[in-house]
Amino acid sequence: MGKNPKKVVLAYSGGLDTSVILRWLQERYGCEVVTFTADLGQGEELGPARAKAEAMGVREIFVEDLREKFVKDFVFPMFRANALYEGQYLLGTSIARPLISQRQIEIAEAVGADAVAHGATGKGNDQVRFELAYYALKPDIRVIAPWREWELTSRTKLLEFAERHQIPITRDKRGEAPFSVDANLLHSSSEGKILEDPAHGPDEIVFQRTLSPEAAPDVATEITIDFRHGDPVAINGEALSPAALLTKLNALGRANGIGRLDMVENRFVGMKSRGIYETPGGTILLAAHRAIETITLDREAAHLKDSIMPRYAEVIYNGLWFSPERHMMQALIDASQHSVNGRVRLKLYKGNVICIGRESPDSLYDSRVVTFEEDGGAYDHKDAQGFIRLNALRLRLGAMKGRRGGAL
Amino acid sequence: MGKNPKKVVLAYSGGLDTSVILRWLQERYGCEVVTFTADLGQGEELGPARAKAEAMGVREIFVEDLREKFVKDFVFPMFRANALYEGQYLLGTSIARPLISQRQIEIAEAVGADAVAHGATGKGNDQVRFELAYYALKPDIRVIAPWREWELTSRTKLLEFAERHQIPITRDKRGEAPFSVDANLLHSSSEGKILEDPAHGPDEIVFQRTLSPEAAPDVATEITIDFRHGDPVAINGEALSPAALLTKLNALGRANGIGRLDMVENRFVGMKSRGIYETPGGTILLAAHRAIETITLDREAAHLKDSIMPRYAEVIYNGLWFSPERHMMQALIDASQHSVNGRVRLKLYKGNVICIGRESPDSLYDSRVVTFEEDGGAYDHKDAQGFIRLNALRLRLGAMKGRRGGAL
Amino acid sequence: MGKNPKKVVLAYSGGLDTSVILRWLQERYGCEVVTFTADLGQGEELGPARAKAEAMGVREIFVEDLREKFVKDFVFPMFRANALYEGQYLLGTSIARPLISQRQIEIAEAVGADAVAHGATGKGNDQVRFELAYYALKPDIRVIAPWREWELTSRTKLLEFAERHQIPITRDKRGEAPFSVDANLLHSSSEGKILEDPAHGPDEIVFQRTLSPEAAPDVATEITIDFRHGDPVAINGEALSPAALLTKLNALGRANGIGRLDMVENRFVGMKSRGIYETPGGTILLAAHRAIETITLDREAAHLKDSIMPRYAEVIYNGLWFSPERHMMQALIDASQHSVNGRVRLKLYKGNVICIGRESPDSLYDSRVVTFEEDGGAYDHKDAQGFIRLNALRLRLGAMKGRRGGAL
Amino acid sequence: MGKNPKKVVLAYSGGLDTSVILRWLQERYGCEVVTFTADLGQGEELGPARAKAEAMGVREIFVEDLREKFVKDFVFPMFRANALYEGQYLLGTSIARPLISQRQIEIAEAVGADAVAHGATGKGNDQVRFELAYYALKPDIRVIAPWREWELTSRTKLLEFAERHQIPITRDKRGEAPFSVDANLLHSSSEGKILEDPAHGPDEIVFQRTLSPEAAPDVATEITIDFRHGDPVAINGEALSPAALLTKLNALGRANGIGRLDMVENRFVGMKSRGIYETPGGTILLAAHRAIETITLDREAAHLKDSIMPRYAEVIYNGLWFSPERHMMQALIDASQHSVNGRVRLKLYKGNVICIGRESPDSLYDSRVVTFEEDGGAYDHKDAQGFIRLNALRLRLGAMKGRRGGAL
Repeated sequence: MGKNPKKVVLAYSGGLDTSVILRWLQERYGCEVVTFTADLGQGEELGPARAKAEAMGVREIFVEDLREKFVKDFVFPMFRANALYEGQYLLGTSIARPLISQRQIEIAEAVGADAVAHGATGKGNDQVRFELAYYALKPDIRVIAPWREWELTSRTKLLEFAERHQIPITRDKRGEAPFSVDANLLHSSSEGKILEDPAHGPDEIVFQRTLSPEAAPDVATEITIDFRHGDPVAINGEALSPAALLTKLNALGRANGIGRLDMVENRFVGMKSRGIYETPGGTILLAAHRAIETITLDREAAHLKDSIMPRYAEVIYNGLWFSPERHMMQALIDASQHSVNGRVRLKLYKGNVICIGRESPDSLYDSRVVTFEEDGGAYDHKDAQGFIRLNALRLRLGAMKGRRGGAL
Repeated sequence: MGKNPKKVVLAYSGGLDTSVILRWLQERYGCEVVTFTADLGQGEELGPARAKAEAMGVREIFVEDLREKFVKDFVFPMFRANALYEGQYLLGTSIARPLISQRQIEIAEAVGADAVAHGATGKGNDQVRFELAYYALKPDIRVIAPWREWELTSRTKLLEFAERHQIPITRDKRGEAPFSVDANLLHSSSEGKILEDPAHGPDEIVFQRTLSPEAAPDVATEITIDFRHGDPVAINGEALSPAALLTKLNALGRANGIGRLDMVENRFVGMKSRGIYETPGGTILLAAHRAIETITLDREAAHLKDSIMPRYAEVIYNGLWFSPERHMMQALIDASQHSVNGRVRLKLYKGNVICIGRESPDSLYDSRVVTFEEDGGAYDHKDAQGFIRLNALRLRLGAMKGRRGGAL
Repeated sequence: MGKNPKKVVLAYSGGLDTSVILRWLQERYGCEVVTFTADLGQGEELGPARAKAEAMGVREIFVEDLREKFVKDFVFPMFRANALYEGQYLLGTSIARPLISQRQIEIAEAVGADAVAHGATGKGNDQVRFELAYYALKPDIRVIAPWREWELTSRTKLLEFAERHQIPITRDKRGEAPFSVDANLLHSSSEGKILEDPAHGPDEIVFQRTLSPEAAPDVATEITIDFRHGDPVAINGEALSPAALLTKLNALGRANGIGRLDMVENRFVGMKSRGIYETPGGTILLAAHRAIETITLDREAAHLKDSIMPRYAEVIYNGLWFSPERHMMQALIDASQHSVNGRVRLKLYKGNVICIGRESPDSLYDSRVVTFEEDGGAYDHKDAQGFIRLNALRLRLGAMKGRRGGAL
Repeated sequence: MGKNPKKVVLAYSGGLDTSVILRWLQERYGCEVVTFTADLGQGEELGPARAKAEAMGVREIFVEDLREKFVKDFVFPMFRANALYEGQYLLGTSIARPLISQRQIEIAEAVGADAVAHGATGKGNDQVRFELAYYALKPDIRVIAPWREWELTSRTKLLEFAERHQIPITRDKRGEAPFSVDANLLHSSSEGKILEDPAHGPDEIVFQRTLSPEAAPDVATEITIDFRHGDPVAINGEALSPAALLTKLNALGRANGIGRLDMVENRFVGMKSRGIYETPGGTILLAAHRAIETITLDREAAHLKDSIMPRYAEVIYNGLWFSPERHMMQALIDASQHSVNGRVRLKLYKGNVICIGRESPDSLYDSRVVTFEEDGGAYDHKDAQGFIRLNALRLRLGAMKGRRGGAL
């Protein structure tokens, strides 16, 4: 690690922090910096990022709209698994990092860079996610994580550095931001500072993507979502591209106060943290996907998915999207989705996503079998006795040996 | 199985169906019938059940209020696991069956009965749950399941039998009930008949335990729930017995439109079925328990619980409460709950249960460690580099061998 | 089920029991019987089966050599998972049943039969395995299991029936066989009668496929096995077809006293049973496959496989080869095997299979990294400190809260 | 971390490396060193360790025989789980580290030390195991790992340091050891240097605990082991303390060539390594424990244990004995062992451990049920039909929808 890098590809947002990093890299290492700015649906214009990079003398500037790729190749595969980290979190930040890393590495190879850099801090999960992906994709890459290296360890020092180097500081950045935000097409997260006490709920001001349930309309909105092979393909019968579909779901969720989450979670780096998440479209999508699976998936297929899901979610949370174990679990999950086709009808109302109908040409639900009425021989009640008696046999044998009630 | 039973303990609700069963058992087997009627919070008076049993000549009649035992020894242990069947169902029916079975067997032993009987049908899960518990508790018990045996295979035949035997038929029973209901202190379920088409949402008339979110108040209700060793012990600071606490949560949930679920599930007997569930208090309790765990449980303890939960829920759903595997999983779960103490603050609003605060003397959340600010040495950012690099090592070694991006 | 079947495809071994079944089917149902006899490597000639079927008037006789298909499409995929039921059993019987069932159903469809029949008894697993496969492949097939239906419930009655119908009884069948045997190219199993007491080890006479370790040569045999994508393809450098390869491994195992197992297992139908298994080639193959995986599989890929293996083995044991869950787990397993290539060197000696070398162009083992010597920067010892400290963080935070030693 | 430690408790073997560490700690930090030397059955006299420590001016010297505690509180609980890391490794080194760490911390608290030190290297698992236990038991302890800190990065430098400080170097230490060894009552491991190429088997000279199978007697040795609540308590009917029992099993294993393992494993720190393990007594014990479980454990209890075992083993391998997750899994495992009582008969022969009998007053094996003969009504063959038909129902419903053979 002795020598300085020659050329670094920086994940550059155009904001103050990564602008400082850009300059710091140039200063500290005397290296050329290549910027990469991606539109993952975070809701910011990318033009300024290009302009700022140019102003700081960057010659190779990559600005890319990756929204479709993000949703199609990352978000949708993850939703096939009904992934929830710790029972609640829809992994909105976690799922974006691998794509950014992947493009950074591709760009590094294209421009002949020998290093990559990111603006994630030293206590968070994102540094892990960026770097595990870097290393998995290009094992000899040099990784620079300024927040773990530099001396700009306080806001004051950072601002001083910015001023010293004529990096423009917008008025709102001059003061302390009350919390930090990450956003993409799937979600917005807020954490830190005023949000650090989990004993207190977040103020309304924290929320950026959603109306509060209270502020949402008093009348429910009904929609349908169509699925094909486990992925959503249409809303209200209108076929949409992946990013367009998620964008539309976000709008529907926002309007109806859907997808807020106030959570204390366990970071991979070993501490608990508190985050406020808004995942309006994703919350609707999870409910819809689960609903279509209930009629199209075999029981044991569904249970197997459920049993593997916590580990799948953990793997993604920990930054291991590009790992053998994720690929293997994805193979299992994808194998289950062939017949996950059909239409789900949902009612959106003040924070609630209520399934009010599901139908599919591939439905395994058969009302003739389940009915209380006579079913013309599809099911023989007598079979149940044998089924029960053999399932009970081991328990009976145990009880005969004095282990009553399943005692051990 | 050749000989007739001499004395049968019947799980007797006092309703038409089990009254017919009572008489049928007397007729078919010429045996004495002992009735057992339990108050599990289903919301019906038990006096009539006693009177009807007396009227049919039953000499040994057991009517018992088991609500406290039900909540304390069955519901609360299950909620320690955050159990959800197929990601959604709070197991309200499943968890009641083992207790009924247990008391039936105890009564059978007390009165010297050689058989037990229940009124569950031949296509459902409940027959399995009753009978697996019977056999686990008394392996040589004779089990009579009239719905699998008799010729009363249609509503008409059942009513004819009732009339022939002077069993009173209330007016509302004379016609076809539009769906069938099961209820206890944890939940109410509705299924069958008009609910059999999962493409259509349930009418408002189906719901018995909850206001609709639309009908719920426009102003949120805030409450606190206190936990001790994983179980709730107080609401708004008032200590309550288990049943009283769940009763109060039910009232709060009902008023705020909380706990409705419209679901297609997979039965143990092999078919899909559609159920409408109302679990107002349980839905609040699950959210609260998860919330208090987020600050008091170690990460790996929580993940281990999550990984085992689907199997735990399946075991209960399948009727295996009294089984070695449930006891073993319960030991794992209970071992985790010692420090699950503290207070959760919730906002209840039109179907939503929103956590707005959690605090605990046993909290593992440490804002000094997580803060973006300098933390006085509690965490060294430099450690993250080593952490990441060793976690990446296997991926790097794989990529060096040509398996980039975690390829296999 | 009221009407008699018109045409039944019987899994016919040519032995006494299935010959009796053949005649019984003709008598009992007045139906045409089609016989299907497969060579799965059980080591019996199939000619007599054809002759006997002809003698009993069977017009459509199917005799097929399925050894290659058996090993290639059933045995090898299973060995990719390192499947062991209850930690020990290599599933030799379980894996053969689905193939027989599959061909029976194919034949039933080809000849226009409306039913299938098998000779498995009513207490065993094989009835389940046959029938679950039948139903999965042809849901409306009628299944006849004579052992559960007929009155020939004792050996004496069976022999009387045979004599009455001029079914030839070989001398050794006239007396009671001391135990029952199932065999195919993967294994031989013996159970029942004299083997029913698990307190006593089996006599040497029970073993059919293997020399005893004591009788095996005093000098070890060394071999190599080559793998490609997880499957064995050559022994001692000689490429062999799947069945030829397993045949050769069987000979090597037999000679060296390898692959005996005396086990008490838990049947799917709920009881414990005791079996004596001989799986000479399979035992060698498992050791070899595990060995090649140790150098070619990523750690988490291997651990994920290990974590899912018990369920995979259980699914096969229970007869669910043709099930969604088996297909899904197979997808996960197969996804892991692409780089499982290379050569394993083994020493076979008196019951032992000892790996004495493994090498692979896809090896992930890197002696430069692991060496105690200086490694030129491949690994920085300093990284270990951060790795340990962050892995310890949650434990330290717990201990600071009074939960020392990982207490809960 | 700035200030020097005042008093360090060193895990001291008395060998060259830890003697150098002892002196280096005194030199580098000017601190007092307290030595702790434990007899875990490694087979070395501890007297010299005391003498050497005294010679180097150590005033507080702890030398303790921990063999009984090691086996009773660490080895036996682990064997209740049938723990195998990566399907093969009996965790002999892993299970010793937590005990050493625990005593070190207890001593540190007793003598008022502010730091602990160990002699494990920077690439191995042992550093992790020591330190995770330290931190879990005393979160504010200072940990010194000389191998990650010092400049003695080659053998030559180490020897120079020793000579410069008059640390005696035995003749055999002067040259390079051909491999490194760790030993305790459970096992001996050898790795490094000449063992680093996994393509070549180990020379006979590597083995220290076992005769080769070839050198073992030509006549088998038969023994019995008695179990109580899952732990072994007697050999050949003679009650023995835990350490005495394991010592005796080691002698039996050694003599019969049992317990050798040549393995490539995946370290927690991210690399593959190759180890040669000898676990003679443990190998016998695992076979015996599995055997007694086969007749005393319920099926689902056994399967649940099997499903959790890989994670349990991984947790121990990774050094997380003192963790919430290990305690939780131990609770599950221990809950299963109450009825694991009885006697196992084994034949030990040239590397083989062959079970030739198991019996128990708590046996769940019931020959009346399993027999092919008539069983007096314990089992009704007719029940099997219902059992199969309901287990098949979901597959049939799937097949009717075009998903034949369990297709998805």
